[in-house]
Amino acid sequence: MKVEQILHMIGGVGGNSYANNSKLQEKAILKTKPMVEEAISDICNTIHTNNIVVADLGCSSGPNTLLVLSHISNAIEKHYCQYNRKQPEIQYFFNDLPSNDFNSIFQLLMLYEEQLRENKAADYVNLYAVGLPGSFYGRLFPTKTVHFFHSSYSLMWLTQVPQGLDEKNCAQLNKGNIYIADASSSIVYHLYLNQFKKDFSKFLRSRSKELIFGGKMVLSFLGRKNSPAFGDIFNFWSLLADALNSMISEGLVEEAKVNTFNLPFYAPLMEEVKSIIEMEGSFHVGQTQTFESNWDPFDDSTDNFVINSTLSGQNVAKYIRAVLEPLLISHFGDDIIEDLFSRYAQNIARHISIEKAKIVVLILVLKLKE
Amino acid sequence: MKVEQILHMIGGVGGNSYANNSKLQEKAILKTKPMVEEAISDICNTIHTNNIVVADLGCSSGPNTLLVLSHISNAIEKHYCQYNRKQPEIQYFFNDLPSNDFNSIFQLLMLYEEQLRENKAADYVNLYAVGLPGSFYGRLFPTKTVHFFHSSYSLMWLTQVPQGLDEKNCAQLNKGNIYIADASSSIVYHLYLNQFKKDFSKFLRSRSKELIFGGKMVLSFLGRKNSPAFGDIFNFWSLLADALNSMISEGLVEEAKVNTFNLPFYAPLMEEVKSIIEMEGSFHVGQTQTFESNWDPFDDSTDNFVINSTLSGQNVAKYIRAVLEPLLISHFGDDIIEDLFSRYAQNIARHISIEKAKIVVLILVLKLKE
Repeated sequence: MKVEQILHMIGGVGGNSYANNSKLQEKAILKTKPMVEEAISDICNTIHTNNIVVADLGCSSGPNTLLVLSHISNAIEKHYCQYNRKQPEIQYFFNDLPSNDFNSIFQLLMLYEEQLRENKAADYVNLYAVGLPGSFYGRLFPTKTVHFFHSSYSLMWLTQVPQGLDEKNCAQLNKGNIYIADASSSIVYHLYLNQFKKDFSKFLRSRSKELIFGGKMVLSFLGRKNSPAFGDIFNFWSLLADALNSMISEGLVEEAKVNTFNLPFYAPLMEEVKSIIEMEGSFHVGQTQTFESNWDPFDDSTDNFVINSTLSGQNVAKYIRAVLEPLLISHFGDDIIEDLFSRYAQNIARHISIEKAKIVVLILVLKLKE
Repeated sequence: MKVEQILHMIGGVGGNSYANNSKLQEKAILKTKPMVEEAISDICNTIHTNNIVVADLGCSSGPNTLLVLSHISNAIEKHYCQYNRKQPEIQYFFNDLPSNDFNSIFQLLMLYEEQLRENKAADYVNLYAVGLPGSFYGRLFPTKTVHFFHSSYSLMWLTQVPQGLDEKNCAQLNKGNIYIADASSSIVYHLYLNQFKKDFSKFLRSRSKELIFGGKMVLSFLGRKNSPAFGDIFNFWSLLADALNSMISEGLVEEAKVNTFNLPFYAPLMEEVKSIIEMEGSFHVGQTQTFESNWDPFDDSTDNFVINSTLSGQNVAKYIRAVLEPLLISHFGDDIIEDLFSRYAQNIARHISIEKAKIVVLILVLKLKE
């Protein structure tokens, strides 16, 4: 499976689109904002230039894409304003895989720029935004041309199902599961970790060539708190595997299909991430943070009680569908999708009615080593 | 009418798409190739850099978009190879209006880059291509960041229907016509020329700020050879107006609708173009060229005889439909489109069965004045 050609959020602005089902991602963006502002301020103090180049890696399409842009460009303007310096020009790169819905981003961007123009002097233009299709697990920019990299909710996606798990003859290794599960052997966990190591190292190596010295990266992505193979993120995917398995028993999905499906996804521990960064050697880790969100993006409460577990189950299934549907269709076809997510919603509801579940987001600020 | 939000070629790869109906534009690109190569060679001799920034303005979407990219990147590589210099990195900007089908470009680009990788060493990457949505009648790039601008078959499109013609109370001025026609008053011609002056000057002013000194522009676009208001380009649009008018007489289109429709298009004389460049003052005109194509893109013969005028009429109507359909739909709705282009094909066929008609393309190479 070539993840690069298949993985993308559901485009457009329909009911199932990522644009309409990305509230959880929005929370991470809001949580990361202060660290973005601080990083921008550091960059502007260190590098004196009239043209700041910024990239959002794995930007997807929807309001969040523009939210990140507005945070970053506002932070730059605020900094320059504070020090009474002439506003710089900002070249802003929206990056995602080529199958991402860039047309939708550009439509939203047009409205955003119109608003900007209304709020400022007529001729005021200092934002030059472009779309950059390509995998961030490789080079995207000419050498030493970028001041600031941002990436939110993307780096847990791997370039491929882990080597050793993607072959049909390895179907037995993780039978009945689609990710590391309680029942998986430790080999499965190591294959996943190895793939993440390989991919994340490639990411770091590529960025280290592209970043201008004095520039920074703010990365946030799904991770986990507990070692090695237990916790909410495993339950999260096990409940989807359960839905698939129940469909096998009813003859709706072939068993072989499920046994040969594994997610190209890994939620690392903060220690694992730091150790890869150290091993790769280009970057110094600055500030780090770990925060938790309820599975249901619309549930902001901090207590341990789910008011309406059925509704919460549906909310969760809906945003996972916006992310996973193209990947699932490419393996299973589109006949099973409705049924699968209806079962998944029920499984989630049952799970969280017993104990409210959380997802974990890791945030890191990185700068090039001297 | 906000041309910027409406004008775009038909996206995708369907039978009526621009991608499948752009052979005439391909001819201009092939004709321009030697001048592009010479310009690139001059730039590479003048500016020594490891990172060349190139932009194709009004790139549309389809095979032509990638053809321009391949001409330019091959020319750069050839030059560096010839002088045994290390290949530079190329940052390539596809620019068009936000409604252009960038998703399609990025799909084609993915295939193109795969081919590149197959033909070269595995790790060889020196092309970084991005999509830049926005009107080239304004700023698109930070100051002094671009080495080479290319634009083909785009600059004859205006930002708006000429001021003075776009208002409903001016409907009488160009009644029954959709462009300057034999029957138009000289006011109409001057309104069109003025709008072109205004827009083309804006284009030059914007590019003059973005171009690095020593950089160049190669521009090709539709024009005309005769002054002031006669010739093939006028016939071309008059035959479309005739089709609309015949539909009025049959009650299929409202007369008021036709009287308030004018094309945001102007095909200038080479002298007009040169005089605007001189007046704007930033650029020096180098090489220029004028060439003619038969109306039928599939007719490459130089004689004065059309073999199958019905087929040729259909060919012409088809490529004009790929360009004009979104614009026409926004004014007339989509009910009339099939009928309109069927009538247009017949009108073209009748016209060229009497005398083979030509379109005129102007090509100019520009560089910044010292």
